[in-house]
Amino acid sequence: MHKHNFYAGPSILSQYTIKNTAEAVIDFAGTGLSILEVSHRSKEFVAVMEEARALVKELLEVPDGYSVLFLGGGASLQFCMVPFNLLARKAAYMETGTWAVNAIKEARLFGEVDVVASSKDANFNYIPKGFTVPQDADYFHYTSNNTIYGTEIRHDLDAGKVRLVCDMSSDIFSRPVDVSKYDVIYAGAQKNLAPAGATIVIVREDALGHVERPIPTMLDYRTHIKKDSMFNTPPVLPIFSALQTLRWYKEQGGVKELEKRDIAKADLLYEAIDSSRMFEGTVKDHADRSIMNVCFVMKPEYKELEKEFVDFAAARGIVGIKGHRSVGGFRASLYNALPIESVRALVEAMNEFQSSH
Amino acid sequence: MHKHNFYAGPSILSQYTIKNTAEAVIDFAGTGLSILEVSHRSKEFVAVMEEARALVKELLEVPDGYSVLFLGGGASLQFCMVPFNLLARKAAYMETGTWAVNAIKEARLFGEVDVVASSKDANFNYIPKGFTVPQDADYFHYTSNNTIYGTEIRHDLDAGKVRLVCDMSSDIFSRPVDVSKYDVIYAGAQKNLAPAGATIVIVREDALGHVERPIPTMLDYRTHIKKDSMFNTPPVLPIFSALQTLRWYKEQGGVKELEKRDIAKADLLYEAIDSSRMFEGTVKDHADRSIMNVCFVMKPEYKELEKEFVDFAAARGIVGIKGHRSVGGFRASLYNALPIESVRALVEAMNEFQSSH
Repeated sequence: MHKHNFYAGPSILSQYTIKNTAEAVIDFAGTGLSILEVSHRSKEFVAVMEEARALVKELLEVPDGYSVLFLGGGASLQFCMVPFNLLARKAAYMETGTWAVNAIKEARLFGEVDVVASSKDANFNYIPKGFTVPQDADYFHYTSNNTIYGTEIRHDLDAGKVRLVCDMSSDIFSRPVDVSKYDVIYAGAQKNLAPAGATIVIVREDALGHVERPIPTMLDYRTHIKKDSMFNTPPVLPIFSALQTLRWYKEQGGVKELEKRDIAKADLLYEAIDSSRMFEGTVKDHADRSIMNVCFVMKPEYKELEKEFVDFAAARGIVGIKGHRSVGGFRASLYNALPIESVRALVEAMNEFQSSH
Repeated sequence: MHKHNFYAGPSILSQYTIKNTAEAVIDFAGTGLSILEVSHRSKEFVAVMEEARALVKELLEVPDGYSVLFLGGGASLQFCMVPFNLLARKAAYMETGTWAVNAIKEARLFGEVDVVASSKDANFNYIPKGFTVPQDADYFHYTSNNTIYGTEIRHDLDAGKVRLVCDMSSDIFSRPVDVSKYDVIYAGAQKNLAPAGATIVIVREDALGHVERPIPTMLDYRTHIKKDSMFNTPPVLPIFSALQTLRWYKEQGGVKELEKRDIAKADLLYEAIDSSRMFEGTVKDHADRSIMNVCFVMKPEYKELEKEFVDFAAARGIVGIKGHRSVGGFRASLYNALPIESVRALVEAMNEFQSSH
């Protein structure tokens, strides 16, 4: 049975990425060796790294003065790398979900943290507005998409003259971004780019070197900039797969086209939810709704049917729609590689389920 | 042409590992999804993680009270994680090569470092003996195999009552180890285990919690112990491949059998080098020679033929034998998955080359 993959991450990748990766596991770039066992210093892999970096720059229109890094360790490691490199005295953070909470916790080890806005009071089901970023902060950090709660900030925030740092783990490449507004953008690869194991970091070079503390070598962005992400052995296969996805993105028309498709998919599902008798979205303000992760639940009178619907959908090849325990209900992740046909299959399953109950 | 893969890392993996990984990239465990796009929380991947952990414990006879972790970030990240977690006041380090130098550099950010022995005076071409580990050190750190220089400590060192920490990145699973003597063993997976992107850490649980400093969450071993290496998204595919290698190791007869084969391969190559007119080993003391990485050069009178021999070997499918720039000449890495036939092919190439020059 064909599967519709709605996992929140690791999550669906393009068939182009999967097919080319499978081939490279057998024979990488005609070397006669597997991508699993080839040196990261081989000219064939160095070419992969260079093309991947160049394509990120092209797709996101990264200006001069920025470096694109592919690191190991996951976005969670960035929660401490950012303050290690940038927090001299005080940082401002926006608290919009579990990952923001985790990022704030790490920053507090390094200096004063001003949480300028939070939606914790309503289980993070909205994006706070109307807050002020203190202009003496070293940087302002926010999470553009909250995977668990299904909220998203779909524009570049303005923090005045304060450096901007953004965790774009779950929505990078889903819209054009004005990179020049940011000092650090980071994203775990396992949503919109590659299998788990790599993290992409886009960093403005002149934002570095302004803190006094000693920084462990591996946690210092300058180490990886200087060595083109080859200071130590990088996660070779995840970077190879990332390159395949980036090529596919370019061929599909780039991030503007991806955004158009993502909006169409999200609209289809949100419309089905909003017009339904049985389901309701957990994020009420439409402007705050994520186009990557759609969170919804059964209305109170149908609550006991949630488990049954997960099984009903699974019988139709729909996997990964169980909501995170912090929200409950369902979460359908609509990452770039998910075809609209999968959203249609989910909407049909919802409609059929409603008709039969 | 069949390739003989002598890369120092990432390096040759068993055909069992490669074939099963290629299949899982297409369909993982009958899920209908690729291992690249399946949730780390899926029951199928949780089973992979559990079996991999159990097999490490079985193969290395890890006693109770130890945790086996699969982390991202590479062994280089361990260079700071070890002192973060264990260095309260002073640590002792042995300096036997580039990676030891890097580990020492990181430890110095955290406290006093006593370099108790070094072979830097002879470009690390021997293992220092007869040194004393200060009994007031928090731990003693050494590198069991020096990939770049071809030296190896093929027994468990004794540091008295001082905690023992060992970087076994390039020789783990090549001999039985008495894990009970160590507090931390770590190893980048990309030599004897898996593709790049995962690091295995074996840690004695009661060695932790004795330092006062705050530890960033991702760098605290206790975080990963508590969450069974699932605090954040782990490097899914590298761990899947690691499991395949571990299964293959068990089927081959375990580390005792692997050691026997590794010794036979190394003996074959060292004998060819030592009996040759043209080549010579860079490590003179036979007791210090690595069975994983065999470093050799052309004798001074033939020095200008080194480049020619690399090409001569490449024409016979022999790849990855160019020595690291710190040593020059050649390095043949004979990791567990390398068949003795590849060593025979290299020895034949050496003999033919000598005959024709």
